[in-house]
Amino acid sequence: MMIDLNADLGEGFGIWRLGDDMALLDLVTSANIACGFHAGDPLTIRRTCAAAVDRGVAIGAQVSYRDLAGFGRREMEVDPEELCAEVLYQLAAVDGIARAMGGRVSYVKPHGALYNRICRDPEQADAVVEAVADYDRGLPVLTLPGSAVHEIAAREGVATVTEAFADRAYTPSGALVPRRSPGAVLHDPAEVAARAVRMATAHTVTAVDGSQVPVDARSICVHGDTPDAVLLARAVRDGLAAAGVTLKAFT
Amino acid sequence: MMIDLNADLGEGFGIWRLGDDMALLDLVTSANIACGFHAGDPLTIRRTCAAAVDRGVAIGAQVSYRDLAGFGRREMEVDPEELCAEVLYQLAAVDGIARAMGGRVSYVKPHGALYNRICRDPEQADAVVEAVADYDRGLPVLTLPGSAVHEIAAREGVATVTEAFADRAYTPSGALVPRRSPGAVLHDPAEVAARAVRMATAHTVTAVDGSQVPVDARSICVHGDTPDAVLLARAVRDGLAAAGVTLKAFT
Amino acid sequence: MMIDLNADLGEGFGIWRLGDDMALLDLVTSANIACGFHAGDPLTIRRTCAAAVDRGVAIGAQVSYRDLAGFGRREMEVDPEELCAEVLYQLAAVDGIARAMGGRVSYVKPHGALYNRICRDPEQADAVVEAVADYDRGLPVLTLPGSAVHEIAAREGVATVTEAFADRAYTPSGALVPRRSPGAVLHDPAEVAARAVRMATAHTVTAVDGSQVPVDARSICVHGDTPDAVLLARAVRDGLAAAGVTLKAFT
Amino acid sequence: MMIDLNADLGEGFGIWRLGDDMALLDLVTSANIACGFHAGDPLTIRRTCAAAVDRGVAIGAQVSYRDLAGFGRREMEVDPEELCAEVLYQLAAVDGIARAMGGRVSYVKPHGALYNRICRDPEQADAVVEAVADYDRGLPVLTLPGSAVHEIAAREGVATVTEAFADRAYTPSGALVPRRSPGAVLHDPAEVAARAVRMATAHTVTAVDGSQVPVDARSICVHGDTPDAVLLARAVRDGLAAAGVTLKAFT
Repeated sequence: MMIDLNADLGEGFGIWRLGDDMALLDLVTSANIACGFHAGDPLTIRRTCAAAVDRGVAIGAQVSYRDLAGFGRREMEVDPEELCAEVLYQLAAVDGIARAMGGRVSYVKPHGALYNRICRDPEQADAVVEAVADYDRGLPVLTLPGSAVHEIAAREGVATVTEAFADRAYTPSGALVPRRSPGAVLHDPAEVAARAVRMATAHTVTAVDGSQVPVDARSICVHGDTPDAVLLARAVRDGLAAAGVTLKAFT
Repeated sequence: MMIDLNADLGEGFGIWRLGDDMALLDLVTSANIACGFHAGDPLTIRRTCAAAVDRGVAIGAQVSYRDLAGFGRREMEVDPEELCAEVLYQLAAVDGIARAMGGRVSYVKPHGALYNRICRDPEQADAVVEAVADYDRGLPVLTLPGSAVHEIAAREGVATVTEAFADRAYTPSGALVPRRSPGAVLHDPAEVAARAVRMATAHTVTAVDGSQVPVDARSICVHGDTPDAVLLARAVRDGLAAAGVTLKAFT
Repeated sequence: MMIDLNADLGEGFGIWRLGDDMALLDLVTSANIACGFHAGDPLTIRRTCAAAVDRGVAIGAQVSYRDLAGFGRREMEVDPEELCAEVLYQLAAVDGIARAMGGRVSYVKPHGALYNRICRDPEQADAVVEAVADYDRGLPVLTLPGSAVHEIAAREGVATVTEAFADRAYTPSGALVPRRSPGAVLHDPAEVAARAVRMATAHTVTAVDGSQVPVDARSICVHGDTPDAVLLARAVRDGLAAAGVTLKAFT
Repeated sequence: MMIDLNADLGEGFGIWRLGDDMALLDLVTSANIACGFHAGDPLTIRRTCAAAVDRGVAIGAQVSYRDLAGFGRREMEVDPEELCAEVLYQLAAVDGIARAMGGRVSYVKPHGALYNRICRDPEQADAVVEAVADYDRGLPVLTLPGSAVHEIAAREGVATVTEAFADRAYTPSGALVPRRSPGAVLHDPAEVAARAVRMATAHTVTAVDGSQVPVDARSICVHGDTPDAVLLARAVRDGLAAAGVTLKAFT
């Protein structure tokens, strides 16, 4: 058995920090590095890329809407042609920095509101996929099972990889419970780790109604921006190791 | 005889335009394309790169301080490590877009206040050169004769290329008359074209005191952001052609 | 008979200009001045305010989503509490500048996507109205007839003023034909002026199907950002004057 | 004896936080609130103003260069006319928000690089003072003893107030030891508190060479952006109280 562990990193901006990037880089196998549009100044990006390369952690371009003030968490009605160019710009910038540090971007993970939007909006999904295809058709897109991105990417010859969230509640139909609902986010490290193990070994998760829901995921996302992020990630990593699951990047 | 003609292009942002990019791309041999820090949104960058590729015009990354409100024309006390990362980010972004459009960035031209600053500030010059070396040591930096950049770049194994300004007044010592001084910028197309021809053929320019000053330039810069920019560029191009000078990118 | 003529002004940013502010200020009676979030740097705002004060033109705060790259034309899912604070910030900034120039903000006109959004979204409309009420309950909000803003503003004790668009096509039900539809924007000065006159005198407009639609407007908006904006505005002003309509700000 | 205690507050941006604003507001008598140019989104500004009003803490507009990425810590060659408009914009925005929350801006404290620059650059100092005078000649400017601002402000009829830094090392001539020098910043709460007491009661500070240097300050600044900021501020406040010094805003 084998699984990837990914987290959002490099999400500071200027003087402001978010999460403990270096501690998380010791735990994950894939780093979704902010590209400057929702977070991530060039120096932070360079340092995070360099640290990921040092530790053999795979680098993903965490592309976003252009929205520093809203941290990319607000849906925007961006024209597809413009969105495509914006994704291309971000992807190229971070890949170039990663290469200068001796690595490279090996996948793309849209961030925040863009991530959610392209699960259901074929037009914006197409814009993102087109940017990836224009830049390097060999880069997979990390997304949710059931997302609109899968079919659109397949049509363009771009691969997709699915992920699950060990610290998020699931509905009986396999969707995430919206972040603002009570109980949407789990905080107990032992429970989160146990869910990660079941995701990786049994390919299921216990939904909010107690039912077992199938989860098809090659990667598990752990959040990097909460105070207890490092604790949770370590619990997940240790839990998976104890269960005999090999942690390995999907790229 | 051979000379390159370069101009600043892609310097719009969002709804705002600056200069007639497409008309200028029919006249120049090298396009300094804005990278998003002083101007240039991703869609404008992509369109300008695509148009440059179509016309066989060489693409340069016009890297800048991060200063949209000041159009990169205000000197900033940026920490060298941060400046280096900022230049790397911009260079990578535009090169990636250019490659997606079938071309590539083949040189770097710092913009505005950064251009002037690194002519005399070894610390910031070193930061820019280091970014170029980190990204691709094969990319030359376009700069003024006498700039501090030359020596620093040579030390890092980065090439430099010199340029002259056909529409700017020169002092007897070969420096540019500061932009705010009266007569600093020439507007008569015939005169500007004649100066360009003498720069390319006799390697001299007439200074403000009437003396002949040597000018060693492989490229001539024409401004793209003035109302009469296209007129001037066409006059220079036609004048050079009539004088038997071949227009050819330096890359 | 009496009508107000309003236009969007001060919509440059840094080096970039949009429209001929000074020429339009000689024609309109109310100036919707950009507040820095979709356009309008502080110096442009100050100069436009000063020029409006000189000419006795009423000043409105043209508040917007925070979106320079998209010129405020892209809908954003902004949290109402944050939107309220953003509108308050913009309104206060421009009012303070206007007062320093000897005038003051006398109304609020939301811009672009925010203008359209609050016609139908009570939550964002409420956020905008709350900001106005918090700042100065005496400032009216300029908006479309039929907008959701009217009822919400009335509940808060904030006045609203309706406007019509002389150069936009109307549907038989009195709505604007969406900007991207063919024929949505009229360009013939004589036709636009004639429509303005009928709006002001007969309170009707001819819809795209030839029917007469009632239009209840205390102000007519002329666009400031098109190349022929000054021509159109002058035709409207002259047409209204010739028809005996008095041009007068609604504030 | 009477002294004011001021700190920089509201210096988050969007998702990012800096310092514990609410804890510091319980300790200081004057809050320098970020205005959006180096930090401070509108919602953060509004919340900080509301909390300051609740606690009876005086509100100052902490105006800055436009530089989010550099937190306003990088000197910029801004044209004085533009700088003046930028300061006016920020001051008006925060004063308007403060008034909507039931308070008002009662002084101006330039931030970071602008603070340091106008201590020695009469041109930029004049731009800042002019903005204050244009907005409200009754607002004092908080600055260093010996700053160029004093004379320029006096000429314009604008008051100045001097401050000292309890946690910064002083040279024998009474200047601050540059932040990057070793020992420039003191971290021991007891020592910092003792220095504050001596500043308030004996009007002197012990310089790095052990000599006693006169310090003429109506306010003492404590830093808000360090991890131990609250501890230091509490030690200073308690130390001053124990020494019989009354803490009171200067406005």
